[in-house]
Amino acid sequence: MQYQAISIDEKFKKFSEVFQPKVIAEMNDYQFKLARVKGDFVWHSHAETDETFLVIDGELIIEFRDGTVKVRKGEMFVVRRGVEHKPFAQTECKIMLIEPVGTVNTGRTGGKLTAPNDAWI
Amino acid sequence: MQYQAISIDEKFKKFSEVFQPKVIAEMNDYQFKLARVKGDFVWHSHAETDETFLVIDGELIIEFRDGTVKVRKGEMFVVRRGVEHKPFAQTECKIMLIEPVGTVNTGRTGGKLTAPNDAWI
Repeated sequence: MQYQAISIDEKFKKFSEVFQPKVIAEMNDYQFKLARVKGDFVWHSHAETDETFLVIDGELIIEFRDGTVKVRKGEMFVVRRGVEHKPFAQTECKIMLIEPVGTVNTGRTGGKLTAPNDAWI
Repeated sequence: MQYQAISIDEKFKKFSEVFQPKVIAEMNDYQFKLARVKGDFVWHSHAETDETFLVIDGELIIEFRDGTVKVRKGEMFVVRRGVEHKPFAQTECKIMLIEPVGTVNTGRTGGKLTAPNDAWI
């Protein structure tokens, strides 16, 4: 039997909206999500979990209350649980998020940028 | 404060041995590990956890008892817990593994290819 790998590029071709994470794989009780980022997201934090950002293309800025990190293509960063952060991208950036099933994109902040939580593509 | 992202390419420059996963980041009780694969690994399984393979460069074949999957650069595959598998690469391949802290590379098989379990670079 020939099993099929998951192509990150092919999955990105399936959606164009920004700030709407799409689930592409599950490992135990964690999910791999793809998202497009452009402009400012909202300040938020996740009380229960760390959150991993892996940049697939472009450049992501994550602002913290005490600083920033620039994450370029082929780089990653883990935001610790409870730490307030605000993702931002000057031009559209493609990222992979790795986090537990049920993690809401806007964390404890909520609001209009809150995306459906378990949208598979 | 300027925080630093983790560059996958820069981390790969720090080691050359094959089948020796190196930890580059931790998220909750999971780790991100880089490994070089060349030739045949051993048949093994992980009784307690799924295991994620993300190919950074080259082409990885994962053999199963009932088939195979070819995972190329930019592609990923999740091996389910308990499923016997044998990674293989014709020419050297660079991969990222995502799995719980404490996952041993040879699973329940053990043997001489068993690598130190928590080697950070």
